[in-house]
Amino acid sequence: MPKKVTIVGSGNWGSAIARIVGETTKANPAIYDPDVVMYVYEEQVEGGKLSEIINTRHENVKYLPGKILPSNVRAVTDLVESCKDSDVLIFVIPHQFVKRTCAPLKGKLKPGAIAISLIKGVSVGEGGGIHLISEIIQHELNVDVAVLMGANLAPEVANENFCEATIGAKDPKLGQELKTLFHCSYFRVNVVKDAHTVELCGALKNVVACAAGFSDGLGYGDNTKAAIIRLGLMEIIRFVEEFYPGSQFTTFFESCGIADLVTTCYGGRNRKVCEAFAKTGRPIAELELELLKGQSAQGPPTAAEVFSTLESRKVSHKFPLMVAVHKICTGQEKVEKFIDYIRDHPEHHQKPHVF
Amino acid sequence: MPKKVTIVGSGNWGSAIARIVGETTKANPAIYDPDVVMYVYEEQVEGGKLSEIINTRHENVKYLPGKILPSNVRAVTDLVESCKDSDVLIFVIPHQFVKRTCAPLKGKLKPGAIAISLIKGVSVGEGGGIHLISEIIQHELNVDVAVLMGANLAPEVANENFCEATIGAKDPKLGQELKTLFHCSYFRVNVVKDAHTVELCGALKNVVACAAGFSDGLGYGDNTKAAIIRLGLMEIIRFVEEFYPGSQFTTFFESCGIADLVTTCYGGRNRKVCEAFAKTGRPIAELELELLKGQSAQGPPTAAEVFSTLESRKVSHKFPLMVAVHKICTGQEKVEKFIDYIRDHPEHHQKPHVF
Repeated sequence: MPKKVTIVGSGNWGSAIARIVGETTKANPAIYDPDVVMYVYEEQVEGGKLSEIINTRHENVKYLPGKILPSNVRAVTDLVESCKDSDVLIFVIPHQFVKRTCAPLKGKLKPGAIAISLIKGVSVGEGGGIHLISEIIQHELNVDVAVLMGANLAPEVANENFCEATIGAKDPKLGQELKTLFHCSYFRVNVVKDAHTVELCGALKNVVACAAGFSDGLGYGDNTKAAIIRLGLMEIIRFVEEFYPGSQFTTFFESCGIADLVTTCYGGRNRKVCEAFAKTGRPIAELELELLKGQSAQGPPTAAEVFSTLESRKVSHKFPLMVAVHKICTGQEKVEKFIDYIRDHPEHHQKPHVF
Repeated sequence: MPKKVTIVGSGNWGSAIARIVGETTKANPAIYDPDVVMYVYEEQVEGGKLSEIINTRHENVKYLPGKILPSNVRAVTDLVESCKDSDVLIFVIPHQFVKRTCAPLKGKLKPGAIAISLIKGVSVGEGGGIHLISEIIQHELNVDVAVLMGANLAPEVANENFCEATIGAKDPKLGQELKTLFHCSYFRVNVVKDAHTVELCGALKNVVACAAGFSDGLGYGDNTKAAIIRLGLMEIIRFVEEFYPGSQFTTFFESCGIADLVTTCYGGRNRKVCEAFAKTGRPIAELELELLKGQSAQGPPTAAEVFSTLESRKVSHKFPLMVAVHKICTGQEKVEKFIDYIRDHPEHHQKPHVF
């Protein structure tokens, strides 16, 4: 039986993905049912209901205006209704809504259903270390959860510009099946097994992007930014190695690793907020409101969780870049001191190693 | 006996390095003689001789104006005279001058003298595959040759902005000794053994930067550039693996690897020329003259040598990005076709592997 697919979320990224999934399901009807459901949180837009506009005009006029969705993508506004018959749930909602979205779905899913999370970020600010979004979904719904991450700015994906992404799925068979759901001529997907690494790269890169923003704001140039990206990557690798043993070194060479890190350090929102912070000294929360128009910068809270995790295992000294980001974001250190934290980085005294 | 050091070259990069070496030799008089010689190709500047201006005003007014050189750096205009008593020769001249600079030095060097090349690029355009600059120096002068590469734009180094570099030296003891000559508070040096990899990264990145330039010129965004950087890095790794067995995977994580690649793909001259080429269709040679003011873009000739090397071993199909750069630069393919070359990259069908 072809599998039924639901896209849980209909924002900018969810709508860009709907354009892909609408086509790939039509192209692979033996594997996937082309009747794709998209859960839409109902809103009034242009005097009408967003779900009705999507189902008649096939355009998400609020979050992805100007791009047509395949007509086999069908908006449904009842969350449980949208998911209860599906075999594959694609989670693509803001990370802060994960728990409250999962809650009504508990016990209502089809047996054997699986999820794939496209949500970048980690659950932070609740103490007790870093919780991966995939772990939260898995815990809440008791389903297997794969992840898809990469250098994927939604508007560019919606424009069908060539890019790559990485699926992390512990079960290789599932990974290949999910690849069929996303891989297309302009969105090229590789599959790896260590899903944790894929997801952690997506979260930790935001801390490095804060450092890149400080550097930009302090007036440093390309050399310094390149060094920050490299040292940041080495800290990401060591963090994953320290806290998630069994990860594959090669995963950092995938789109979810270096590619996403580079893009985020040049163009992302954490970079932007932290550049402004270094230039103006104004509070980060204030700059976030002003510059990101309702979106949040995950770097500072992620740095806080990373810091408490490092402290709990007494390894902070191995991660001076991430420690500096946390201390600067929380006002415990001046941004002008940032470079001094990484000037004598452990990487300058030891060789990187393969694991 | 403290070792005598000569900097062979006095351009922008040579002068920036002289600022470092002048200080490190003073700080380590037991290892290095603080009387540092800089070979200067004599020129008339501001009504005087460049060498005399350097020796009186301690400023290279032509190639690094506004930055003071340490007074223990002494300009010498006779090439043989400048090198004959030295133990360490730092080569930092344009790559096309290497052979003619080595020629008069043959048989004139102190026994046991060694060289370190800071010259990025390879000898291309003479057929017969890629010749590393270090190999040419070694062949011409019969001395051991180490290399120093990294994300090091000279003006930023001269500004003492924090950055990193990589020394490649087959002999670890020599590598550590050379580290003492360059490592300072703002220029952080790691040492690795596989010097070939360090040097090849510095050359091959220029081919990838051409691809990044095409992408920019064609109007693609951050996602596509991130994919190009990643796929380019994977081709660099495979090229080194194929033609220089014994290389260390970890070297690609050093400043000479990802850091330099990223910087070059965002800011370098190959990117710039190839962006203009994609936008205007004008000949690359013409754009080079216009945009680079006498400097050359090494990407296109390097791509040509890479291509003939790949063809000779019948492995071109594994390197579609580098092949596309060559074909487009030589007018055998339209730049608009670039993405089609990498759309179905071998990396999308196999897992990267550690070697």
